Amino acid sequence: MTRIRFEVSYDGTDFCGWQRQNHGPLKSVQHTIEDALKIVFKEKIVLFASGRTDAGVHAISQVCHFDVNRSEESMQRWNLSEALRTHLPSTILLKRVWIAPSDFHATLSATHKTYRYLIYNKPQRSVFLDRYVEWIRRPLDLKHLQKSSKHLLGEHDFKSFQSVGTIVPHTVRKIYKADWIRKNPDLLQLTITGSGFLKQMVRNIVGTQLMLERLKEDPEKLSKIIGLKSRREAGPPAAPQGLYLWKVYYPKELDNRCREL
Amino acid sequence: MTRIRFEVSYDGTDFCGWQRQNHGPLKSVQHTIEDALKIVFKEKIVLFASGRTDAGVHAISQVCHFDVNRSEESMQRWNLSEALRTHLPSTILLKRVWIAPSDFHATLSATHKTYRYLIYNKPQRSVFLDRYVEWIRRPLDLKHLQKSSKHLLGEHDFKSFQSVGTIVPHTVRKIYKADWIRKNPDLLQLTITGSGFLKQMVRNIVGTQLMLERLKEDPEKLSKIIGLKSRREAGPPAAPQGLYLWKVYYPKELDNRCREL
Repeated sequence: MTRIRFEVSYDGTDFCGWQRQNHGPLKSVQHTIEDALKIVFKEKIVLFASGRTDAGVHAISQVCHFDVNRSEESMQRWNLSEALRTHLPSTILLKRVWIAPSDFHATLSATHKTYRYLIYNKPQRSVFLDRYVEWIRRPLDLKHLQKSSKHLLGEHDFKSFQSVGTIVPHTVRKIYKADWIRKNPDLLQLTITGSGFLKQMVRNIVGTQLMLERLKEDPEKLSKIIGLKSRREAGPPAAPQGLYLWKVYYPKELDNRCREL
Repeated sequence: MTRIRFEVSYDGTDFCGWQRQNHGPLKSVQHTIEDALKIVFKEKIVLFASGRTDAGVHAISQVCHFDVNRSEESMQRWNLSEALRTHLPSTILLKRVWIAPSDFHATLSATHKTYRYLIYNKPQRSVFLDRYVEWIRRPLDLKHLQKSSKHLLGEHDFKSFQSVGTIVPHTVRKIYKADWIRKNPDLLQLTITGSGFLKQMVRNIVGTQLMLERLKEDPEKLSKIIGLKSRREAGPPAAPQGLYLWKVYYPKELDNRCREL
């Protein structure tokens, strides 16, 4: 039995999200990769990812692992990346592959994650960016977004930003970084790094920040909304196509024990 | 009878090119817009564009005109852009609309055009850029491309860069600008402005420049290829998805007589 770790990038537009679902016309990213692995290994493979992404959400770098009934030696003898690539659609790209120690777990070993959110802020939309950004017509007040995101930093109970669906017992998370910048004249970008994120947490944060900005509310109100621990107090989620899972972090010590294939 | 001029942007990925075709599964951009105009005006409308774009080629700004059996007054009374927008797919964006004088002709009045070509130059492709750039794995020598494009400037017979299909009697064109820059660490961009372009001329130029760069030929060889006036001497066309019709120019005097709707 060998544990394989890999890094994958995907365009989430044409998927129903990361997780396997038994309804709807779209396939999940997980399902698509598992099907490719099944063809390559001729056995059923179960994938574990660092976390789920919603329908339409993209990944620059998602990390996964799976176990396969092969020896390390046999795994080293062939080019798994190439073999898999031929069975994946063009919207999923296998970036790197490693043999991982058996105590590496894509979900449980992750220490923190970075997401990015992109807003195209121009009076007219762009036919080229529709799939990849949230488009907001009115000129946004970048300073307001920068001020309200300061209130996200540190350890908080983020229950106000948890969408219904998945109930988790602990809703306390730690945010290390939450920076809005003007990436270019027409593009605003949030980079947010945290110990973990609740269901739709980044989209709910962005949606709430945009709501406060639009209503010209005091940016400090974000703090109050966090304190109220109620989803109803926060804004609606921002659109999925603006969101990117950017990077997943693991302990250095574990990274060092992974050997790239 | 009123002449309408408009500016349109489109993602060429899912079209068979600008021009109406009677075969193949994909619709043309022209066909799609004409169908929308027919719904709006309840009459058959024939569109004229500044020029054709190939399948997969994009337009940041294509210019078109058509005549409609309505008075200028009636045209001014309603929002044509909005009416059309609801009948166009998300991959076609109507940017601006004008009432044009009867001597304005989108094809015949155009004095020069600018195209851009984008190359993503990284060992690994990007799932987000597949539709919008040509991907070249090997590190390109930007200086070589910059040197060979110098030989395009001025008036030349560009027969070597004309693809078969449309035979035009005069193959002399004037190139005003042909600049390669490193737009960002991973992206090379050609901006080329000329009095007009033959069928697939920009793609054939880029393909030939890339061929000379790859073979480490003297950049001056581009001059010789032009001089030979034979398609067989030039390189294969570069991929369509890297090409953008960027801007079409008309005489200032004509522009001034167009009134924006």
